[in-house]
Amino acid sequence: MATASALPGAAVTTEALIRQAMPARDPAEMTARLGIERRHFADASDTVASVGAQVLRAALDRAGWAPESLQRCLLVNSHAGDHPIPATVNALLEAAGIRHTCGGVDLNNACTGFVSAFDLGARLVATGVDRVAVVTVELLSRWIGPAQPRSWVVLADAAACCLLGPGPDGAGLVAADFGNDGSRLPAVTLAHGAERRVTFGVPGRAFFDYALEGMLSSAQAVLGELGQPVGAVDWFVLHQPNGALFDRFLSELHIPADRTVRVVDQIGSVGAASAAYGLARLLDEKPVQPGDLVLMVAVGAGASRGAVLWRA
Amino acid sequence: MATASALPGAAVTTEALIRQAMPARDPAEMTARLGIERRHFADASDTVASVGAQVLRAALDRAGWAPESLQRCLLVNSHAGDHPIPATVNALLEAAGIRHTCGGVDLNNACTGFVSAFDLGARLVATGVDRVAVVTVELLSRWIGPAQPRSWVVLADAAACCLLGPGPDGAGLVAADFGNDGSRLPAVTLAHGAERRVTFGVPGRAFFDYALEGMLSSAQAVLGELGQPVGAVDWFVLHQPNGALFDRFLSELHIPADRTVRVVDQIGSVGAASAAYGLARLLDEKPVQPGDLVLMVAVGAGASRGAVLWRA
Repeated sequence: MATASALPGAAVTTEALIRQAMPARDPAEMTARLGIERRHFADASDTVASVGAQVLRAALDRAGWAPESLQRCLLVNSHAGDHPIPATVNALLEAAGIRHTCGGVDLNNACTGFVSAFDLGARLVATGVDRVAVVTVELLSRWIGPAQPRSWVVLADAAACCLLGPGPDGAGLVAADFGNDGSRLPAVTLAHGAERRVTFGVPGRAFFDYALEGMLSSAQAVLGELGQPVGAVDWFVLHQPNGALFDRFLSELHIPADRTVRVVDQIGSVGAASAAYGLARLLDEKPVQPGDLVLMVAVGAGASRGAVLWRA
Repeated sequence: MATASALPGAAVTTEALIRQAMPARDPAEMTARLGIERRHFADASDTVASVGAQVLRAALDRAGWAPESLQRCLLVNSHAGDHPIPATVNALLEAAGIRHTCGGVDLNNACTGFVSAFDLGARLVATGVDRVAVVTVELLSRWIGPAQPRSWVVLADAAACCLLGPGPDGAGLVAADFGNDGSRLPAVTLAHGAERRVTFGVPGRAFFDYALEGMLSSAQAVLGELGQPVGAVDWFVLHQPNGALFDRFLSELHIPADRTVRVVDQIGSVGAASAAYGLARLLDEKPVQPGDLVLMVAVGAGASRGAVLWRA
């Protein structure tokens, strides 16, 4: 599986954002509490299509796949892309030099979107579609501002692509679990209209508790399907909206820190791109071998939760 | 496969809309040219979630499936749902009384969205997910107005649900073809922002020619994979943005009119819901038998095109 990732635009420190939007707070204390030192805000010229094409082309180059050999592209994004009509995946493919030969869809499941799309991508491969791209792009900086400090100091931009195709015997999807809870609707929202801003609608503590419970629930469901304890899993890719949730999840399941990659401190809370970027970094930095088990877990607004267990 | 469909709100005649927005035109002549007599505009209280829950519950009742047995729900919609965050599928499932037990995503590929989602749904079933819903809801009336007469006199609202699960031996997906053409971007657009309006960006003739070519291309690709002529297909479900494209497609492939169901005259141009609603009507009105081949074909903004060949 080839991957590529990108952090568009300039790096912005938490310290700078706190000084701007929460002048009464201590920047160092807030940086430590959020577990986020810096993040990237895309340039005005960046689009979901342009950033997505960049990571798609980089992944295709790494894989040695000709662009015209790609058969399906799932574009994951939480803010309805560059525009709702047409689906943004078409402009992304055009920017990547792919025309006529690839089917695409835009897919949204808030922060759980990448894990949802990975599940679908793996099933496309398992049913005979040999070359599939999951491209995740979040430009959340477009939908936040200092007037909403809670989202302003955590949300940010990132992108990653993973290419899925037939692997060695036994490779592919091992188990998956997804769940919904629409009674939790107001946690994080982005409405239509002139003043589109991502707003947080519940106290941080309630959000944390639900997120932890949701991620543990889906992780335990796929481990149950595997019929083995968590120690049988080689690598972990986790949605990281903040440092505390990441640390707590590792601690709850007794996962050694060297079995995953912490990304939130350098990229912030990047929606569905968190797990997508984390997977790309894992494959870049860790000795993932054929046959290894990778557990990917996410939770997001909706509320939605999901986990996929995948054999490399 | 159980289906259900709905036309939310009141019926509005083309004649009434033409008198309002194009007073210089002859209503009877425009009605004939569009091939649309009437369509439905949803009530102000209708939402994507509420209308989607209505067709989902109706289909579950018909299938005799307990709501909590549903494992995945793919919500197809072109206008970014009721809101981009959270994905609208969560509110839909909540409104249908389904909580915790079902994974969902919002999926967008403009008018090709239902065929794209049907392909993914069939692949979920083929890889062991036994109970899948594809719910298509378009409330396009929310994003049009008499100031843009071309979209105002054709676009409308509709919804349909189809439930997919394991069938008799040989049932399921036989072949699929999808393609993209991002160079065609400006044909139909809906941007973000305060004044969100669906606008048509190319002459009707250019749109017609591309749409016909795209639908024929995908249809012929799946027939090629089947290795049999079009006469081997028992039933046809076609995207129907207007009467002329529907008639021309049937004529080009020599398809007898009784092998499909014309819906556009009574529902207008309803985006991805056109093929979804057409499939529901086909299964309600025609003697579709186990083993029959059903060809579904669509084209949409993007441009995107797709066809799925499915054995009942």
